Amino acid sequence: MLSLCQFNLSNHHIKIEFPEMSHAHVLYEEIAKDRNELQRFLPWANFMKSEQDEMDFLEQCRGDIAKGKGFPFVILCDGTPAGMIDLHNINYNNSKAEVGYWLFSGFQGMGIVTQSLKMMIQNIQEELHFHKYVVLADVKNKASQNIPLRLGFKYEATLKDYLYHHNRFHDLNAFIKLF
Amino acid sequence: MLSLCQFNLSNHHIKIEFPEMSHAHVLYEEIAKDRNELQRFLPWANFMKSEQDEMDFLEQCRGDIAKGKGFPFVILCDGTPAGMIDLHNINYNNSKAEVGYWLFSGFQGMGIVTQSLKMMIQNIQEELHFHKYVVLADVKNKASQNIPLRLGFKYEATLKDYLYHHNRFHDLNAFIKLF
Amino acid sequence: MLSLCQFNLSNHHIKIEFPEMSHAHVLYEEIAKDRNELQRFLPWANFMKSEQDEMDFLEQCRGDIAKGKGFPFVILCDGTPAGMIDLHNINYNNSKAEVGYWLFSGFQGMGIVTQSLKMMIQNIQEELHFHKYVVLADVKNKASQNIPLRLGFKYEATLKDYLYHHNRFHDLNAFIKLF
Amino acid sequence: MLSLCQFNLSNHHIKIEFPEMSHAHVLYEEIAKDRNELQRFLPWANFMKSEQDEMDFLEQCRGDIAKGKGFPFVILCDGTPAGMIDLHNINYNNSKAEVGYWLFSGFQGMGIVTQSLKMMIQNIQEELHFHKYVVLADVKNKASQNIPLRLGFKYEATLKDYLYHHNRFHDLNAFIKLF
Amino acid sequence: MLSLCQFNLSNHHIKIEFPEMSHAHVLYEEIAKDRNELQRFLPWANFMKSEQDEMDFLEQCRGDIAKGKGFPFVILCDGTPAGMIDLHNINYNNSKAEVGYWLFSGFQGMGIVTQSLKMMIQNIQEELHFHKYVVLADVKNKASQNIPLRLGFKYEATLKDYLYHHNRFHDLNAFIKLF
Amino acid sequence: MLSLCQFNLSNHHIKIEFPEMSHAHVLYEEIAKDRNELQRFLPWANFMKSEQDEMDFLEQCRGDIAKGKGFPFVILCDGTPAGMIDLHNINYNNSKAEVGYWLFSGFQGMGIVTQSLKMMIQNIQEELHFHKYVVLADVKNKASQNIPLRLGFKYEATLKDYLYHHNRFHDLNAFIKLF
Repeated sequence: MLSLCQFNLSNHHIKIEFPEMSHAHVLYEEIAKDRNELQRFLPWANFMKSEQDEMDFLEQCRGDIAKGKGFPFVILCDGTPAGMIDLHNINYNNSKAEVGYWLFSGFQGMGIVTQSLKMMIQNIQEELHFHKYVVLADVKNKASQNIPLRLGFKYEATLKDYLYHHNRFHDLNAFIKLF
Repeated sequence: MLSLCQFNLSNHHIKIEFPEMSHAHVLYEEIAKDRNELQRFLPWANFMKSEQDEMDFLEQCRGDIAKGKGFPFVILCDGTPAGMIDLHNINYNNSKAEVGYWLFSGFQGMGIVTQSLKMMIQNIQEELHFHKYVVLADVKNKASQNIPLRLGFKYEATLKDYLYHHNRFHDLNAFIKLF
Repeated sequence: MLSLCQFNLSNHHIKIEFPEMSHAHVLYEEIAKDRNELQRFLPWANFMKSEQDEMDFLEQCRGDIAKGKGFPFVILCDGTPAGMIDLHNINYNNSKAEVGYWLFSGFQGMGIVTQSLKMMIQNIQEELHFHKYVVLADVKNKASQNIPLRLGFKYEATLKDYLYHHNRFHDLNAFIKLF
Repeated sequence: MLSLCQFNLSNHHIKIEFPEMSHAHVLYEEIAKDRNELQRFLPWANFMKSEQDEMDFLEQCRGDIAKGKGFPFVILCDGTPAGMIDLHNINYNNSKAEVGYWLFSGFQGMGIVTQSLKMMIQNIQEELHFHKYVVLADVKNKASQNIPLRLGFKYEATLKDYLYHHNRFHDLNAFIKLF
Repeated sequence: MLSLCQFNLSNHHIKIEFPEMSHAHVLYEEIAKDRNELQRFLPWANFMKSEQDEMDFLEQCRGDIAKGKGFPFVILCDGTPAGMIDLHNINYNNSKAEVGYWLFSGFQGMGIVTQSLKMMIQNIQEELHFHKYVVLADVKNKASQNIPLRLGFKYEATLKDYLYHHNRFHDLNAFIKLF
Repeated sequence: MLSLCQFNLSNHHIKIEFPEMSHAHVLYEEIAKDRNELQRFLPWANFMKSEQDEMDFLEQCRGDIAKGKGFPFVILCDGTPAGMIDLHNINYNNSKAEVGYWLFSGFQGMGIVTQSLKMMIQNIQEELHFHKYVVLADVKNKASQNIPLRLGFKYEATLKDYLYHHNRFHDLNAFIKLF
């Protein structure tokens, strides 16, 4: 219903949307189907066990936006939830935010996240003027690392054992963009 | 930053926007200047006494939207806050909502509210599918009554002594639209 | 334990009482038995599914009275819960309240609600001095409409599709009393 | 508005009433006038510094009754607040409550508290059936000690240094009544 | 992790420790085994029905300490939870606190509680300087009564029917220590 | 009153203590005197404007420890507050925590923080077993950087513009220790 922005990409219409409770049904159904793929790099994918879990999560997302604590959006592709993109760990004192994103397998490889991230930052900046955006990506997840690089983010550091997932620790690469 | 919809009206750009804390400054400044006119029909105009009051109000607006308790939006005209439009007293069980709106004097007479109301209902309906919208307008406020009438609302009733303002009770006319 | 007022009616003793947790047992038992009749005009009758539901409801009633948010009372007839009567949707700014009431089938037709409503308003007025009381009754529920009429309420309006119940919308008549 | 009970005493009408916000004005005015006398045995009398303090206190009293956490009532004598009587430190597991009471100087010596306490316990017992009521009174406050004794309470113990007031500790006598 | 104090007793090491969530497992396991003995004088022993109950209890204990509302500690004997000791019903205005304690059967008879109580009071006094400590013990529980007596507490009173347990009321003896 | 650990250092006694409200007075007095020095690298030093601010902060610290959200401790040197040391930004999923510390000028240069950090980690590890500890220090604050290096932390990365202070952004160096 509410959106941050919308744009056309090839012959698709992309909308970066305020999470609606009505998104829960499709999001949960698709997470359940795509869980095997999603859980490779996304720890939460194994913990989203019911549509109610998804509804609780979206309700929290809405509250976070209202409080300015985070900015999690649903990416709609031609009106259908295709994934999410967000700012989290927002630090207003130090004017900094971290970026997160994921897509269902069926929507990957079309440039949706790259363009969504570009547009999200552009629209957020008009209002919030952050100094620093950070993307953290698994050192083994080349697809995820390429997204910030394509948008001019710079490699900042490799953070040792930053994420615990699949019973072991994983290094993440940090990419940053300063304004 | 987030918007319900946007459209052009004559040579102006209108945006129905999620309230931002950054709107508080302009809203308060203009309310202070326009208070004499606004308080004729709007009881709250005399109680908005500082920019902090406005910030508190906008913070509550954001929370209400997050919880689906109300949908108060800022009307931006060419990027500047021109007034507000909202749904309140939302009753999901009975699929009903009341509409409120006001504009600063300098933006009145251009059709902004009529078109904003039309667009707000159209966009809200895509997600929430209310059965009944109600506009309540002071029986002496012809300008306010004309807005729902122009959009096909029907007169439903005159509600006796519905509003206490300026030390006496005022009758309101109810206009309704069913879906 | 606490009461708003008490009076004799024919050879019965009626008490308008602050809800006690101990009322939950009888109220729930009787609602379960009388559900078929109650649910004709009372949407909540189908949702009160256990004594715990009733206890939760009474606990909320007690809190509402404490906060002045509503005034729901249990009607005791000769010491037994016979139904409820309440003020809700209280608007202190505009000095207005809505009235609700219901009785178990076995207590209907004795004038209990009419006299209880008269006495409730009289006692509430001594403290709160509302300007307007509103009774909303289903246009098909003649028994319910007769109650305010007997007490001098005036018909104000028919509110279209005000209540959704039994899978369709119902018109309600509004009756008002001004002080 | 709501009362636990009412009765006549000599030629006065006494009502044990649910605290109303409207009581705050008279209660505060009289506390301010009578403070010198009240603070002899009542530590709170020196901390009630404004009508707002009294309103905050009464709001808390209403919430306590709603939650069953305590039962503080205003004693009305011929419609005027004359003091308060309450149950506090209620222990439902062990079926026990402590009694408190005080009157403005002008209402003392008429038997109001004795009769109010008798009636309060009688009415509370119908609903809550406590096993043990305790009155704690300063060993030097004979007037206060006589009240439970007149109603058949038994002396249980002298509790050493139970109350800190006027910069020193005071012994209290406990009087109990079992049911 | 955090402790109030630690000391050696015969050839054991005793630590009076801030409750850790990690204590829940051993505490619950031992309570379950020792329930028959514990429930003789401790009403709560029959209501601790799962490790989750114990975790909820310890979480509340931690919050109580943070707020200064109570001071419940785990007694570790050679690193193993052996029981608990606490201050509760703390009254800062009147500078008073009640003491509670219990040990698993296997740790009784070694003087652990006596020494723990002595050390707890000594360490608490350095910070909080209470005027009066009270131990309440069942008149039939000689072992429990001997603990305060060994530390110089004086008998103050027998409180009639203070505790409801095993379907009847029990008298408790109060022992006090003044500072 | 409660402590994580205590140890001797040269001829001083150091205690890593649970924050007490009684620490607020000395902490605030010393912060006020030492503010010029403290605010060089510590942004909060300019915002601690009254003893009440310090009390509010300590109250929050206590709650954070109770919830396991953070572990802020007061460093006592011979019984006097000398500074603070803490774990914050704790991430239990990823088994990681950040370390913070500061001392009043008069206590610097004695090795207090180095030894306190060593002891704090050692004691926290017994209970919480974190995998990774991170120290972030201003690239210009050599004294602060030397502390983790002395304890075997490794340099991990320089984080660009991490901290906004004195109207500009500062780079921080991250030092890490893995377990």
